[in-house]
Amino acid sequence: MRVTALNGPKVQREPGLSAMTGAASGCMLETLKDPVVLNMSDKPSGADNQQERLSANWVVGFVDGEGCFFVGINRQPSMKIGWQVLPEFRVVQHQRDVAVLTQLRQFFGFGQITRNHGDRKELRIRGLRQLSQVVALFRKHPLRTVKRSSFDCFAEVIDMMMRDDHLTEEGLEKIRNLASRMNRGAQNPQRPYARHPGSSPG
Amino acid sequence: MRVTALNGPKVQREPGLSAMTGAASGCMLETLKDPVVLNMSDKPSGADNQQERLSANWVVGFVDGEGCFFVGINRQPSMKIGWQVLPEFRVVQHQRDVAVLTQLRQFFGFGQITRNHGDRKELRIRGLRQLSQVVALFRKHPLRTVKRSSFDCFAEVIDMMMRDDHLTEEGLEKIRNLASRMNRGAQNPQRPYARHPGSSPG
Repeated sequence: MRVTALNGPKVQREPGLSAMTGAASGCMLETLKDPVVLNMSDKPSGADNQQERLSANWVVGFVDGEGCFFVGINRQPSMKIGWQVLPEFRVVQHQRDVAVLTQLRQFFGFGQITRNHGDRKELRIRGLRQLSQVVALFRKHPLRTVKRSSFDCFAEVIDMMMRDDHLTEEGLEKIRNLASRMNRGAQNPQRPYARHPGSSPG
Repeated sequence: MRVTALNGPKVQREPGLSAMTGAASGCMLETLKDPVVLNMSDKPSGADNQQERLSANWVVGFVDGEGCFFVGINRQPSMKIGWQVLPEFRVVQHQRDVAVLTQLRQFFGFGQITRNHGDRKELRIRGLRQLSQVVALFRKHPLRTVKRSSFDCFAEVIDMMMRDDHLTEEGLEKIRNLASRMNRGAQNPQRPYARHPGSSPG
């Protein structure tokens, strides 16, 4: 079990960066230096500046509307199996709302804020250790929209990768299958609608 | 003070309708017969079936992404002042997610679910008494995105209408001004981005 960090005591995150300062001045490509275990309760963490801090339920509601779980599978000849699996969680917003992305980044304790397209910015979270914390959050506080079905596939991919299953032919094939079931019916890849199990193809 | 109901004891809402049953079978145009005071806490109300019930923070997060506050001002010769002010709160979703609209309607205790455009459905809340409860919710649990600035205008319009200010020339002019400041920068009226105070025109 490699996710021992997830089972450790919950600790308060240091603010790391001011929630609002400099948010509009450009991309923030650095990640926080010391990402720690997420505050999974619905109480905003930290006694200071609670007005700026997000609750888990707010985050889940916002992600139900605006979040995207995605698994890329890219040709990578340098890898033994020839393919790289690149899971990613992102939230895209108009640049006017970059402050909310910054608050989300503060909530998670990690992530990169960068330009998406045109006047949109995105918070992007990659990396197995970080994504496994994201998965734990949405397992504790389930999504309400049909995005849940994409998340379920995504979570299974993360679990498999934590066991290195993506480095085997059989595992990779299963991940391909899971990835193909995500974000179906998306007219806009930034705002995917997963097909609800049992609904007609759309 | 006409909003005494808002200050009364919090009461449990009856389920009124099953959250998931029949959601996909067609429009639900009826409103709940006995809308009562909103549960403003972040604890889902009702001991039964908590899994289906929404928390206030989830609702605020989801509305930050997906909600729309709108004030229509329509020519109405039958009214003394010649214009009707029609405020409205709505959440639009792909029809695959009509179950979430139904849960939102259950959360609020009122609202109509109907077709929006094409494959989209909307939860629409009108009526001063109901909208004043919606306003009270988002005052207690503030929005995080720049949609907040549209909400602030909307809330002021509702306050004015509760005092019948919309029936005076002066009040109507002020409401026109507030309405014009809402949902600026919207490329899609279903997904408006309010211009942030102080940001450049966009």
